[in-house]
Amino acid sequence: MSVKSYIGILIILNLFLLLLLESCSLDSDEAESNSLKVKAVFEVIGTRRTVREFQGTSVPQEHIIKILDAARYAPTAGNVQPWKFVVIQKRSRLESLSELLQTSWEQKIKTHPELEEEKRNLYVTGGKEAIQKAMTAPVYIIVLVDTSVYPQYALYDGCLAVENLMLAARSMGYGTGFFTTYFEGGVVKSFLNAPENLKFICATPLGIPLEWPPMPEKKYLEEFIVYESFDEE
Amino acid sequence: MSVKSYIGILIILNLFLLLLLESCSLDSDEAESNSLKVKAVFEVIGTRRTVREFQGTSVPQEHIIKILDAARYAPTAGNVQPWKFVVIQKRSRLESLSELLQTSWEQKIKTHPELEEEKRNLYVTGGKEAIQKAMTAPVYIIVLVDTSVYPQYALYDGCLAVENLMLAARSMGYGTGFFTTYFEGGVVKSFLNAPENLKFICATPLGIPLEWPPMPEKKYLEEFIVYESFDEE
Repeated sequence: MSVKSYIGILIILNLFLLLLLESCSLDSDEAESNSLKVKAVFEVIGTRRTVREFQGTSVPQEHIIKILDAARYAPTAGNVQPWKFVVIQKRSRLESLSELLQTSWEQKIKTHPELEEEKRNLYVTGGKEAIQKAMTAPVYIIVLVDTSVYPQYALYDGCLAVENLMLAARSMGYGTGFFTTYFEGGVVKSFLNAPENLKFICATPLGIPLEWPPMPEKKYLEEFIVYESFDEE
Repeated sequence: MSVKSYIGILIILNLFLLLLLESCSLDSDEAESNSLKVKAVFEVIGTRRTVREFQGTSVPQEHIIKILDAARYAPTAGNVQPWKFVVIQKRSRLESLSELLQTSWEQKIKTHPELEEEKRNLYVTGGKEAIQKAMTAPVYIIVLVDTSVYPQYALYDGCLAVENLMLAARSMGYGTGFFTTYFEGGVVKSFLNAPENLKFICATPLGIPLEWPPMPEKKYLEEFIVYESFDEE
């Protein structure tokens, strides 16, 4: 092959590589970025899970702040923004809370004398274990809302903010959970010395999951959707 | 310059372009994709707005389905999945609903005889206009929950799903709103012929906004956060 042919091939190769580079930079264009945005949001929504056991690894303070910042962008009736997020990170306090919740759970089960003793013991042990596991998270966020302006709407605002919090956390690789059953509102509020006008919404752990739980069994999408009216179903 | 030099330069250019291509393809690697995911989720959370007036442009059926699919990935107590999403798209039905809501609003205001007549008229007119504008959306989704298993938790599940719905819609360029005030639950349920055990959560429009509303005034993030306990504030 002649030297000219070599030069020719090399020039063509250059042009080809330049073309590839061009198409590669197009990837970051706006249209593409929109479809990436949709993909990212749906992936995060679809992979959020309730996490019930955590690695001890701590969560950087700026991540906690970033996640709470997202929470407060939820819709809020009359722009009241009734949220309070209590961040508990001190290990000693998390352990005290765990003790209190376990005792409160045991007492709650004891108020069901209709349960056979064996079953009651199982519930008590199961609950205590669940609380211990959940409390392995390095951070707990207690979500409360001020009900003094719109009592019912404040409740809605609280939940909407929690979903933002959970998705923001999930996008950053953290697990959360909307915990109420083992977290008796009264116990949590008294532990926090929370003012009367604040209503407990939920407690959520924040941390790296021990493992990501599999997807729970889901009903078919069709079961949720009704078109136009219930008559026409 | 000799032919060898040309070939040398061309070879070096090729190597350089190959290196550029390599770094470009690294962009789509996992680490980068994670940070893009975080960015996308936070952008969507931060740019969601309550939209109160819409372009008539219709919403493709597959988009409605995709958005409702995201809604049902919300947390749900005991995996009950208590949701019903009623999709209203027929223009004639949207107009009937609009009429009903306007009448119901007028009647509601009339039950406040303590209001001066002038003020009452203003409220009636303002409400009716707001309803008319909101009903310019080509689709309405009425969110209800089955309260027969966990009445209180079902309410939470309903709100959590609505936030998913709103974020999914926002990522796709659609506006929504958590509407309750002008959408009296009883009126909406009777319009839908909804079963007794379903509780109305909210009505949300779905459509391309006439314009994206600016950010409402926000409290400082610090006002929402309490560390460890209310005593220590």
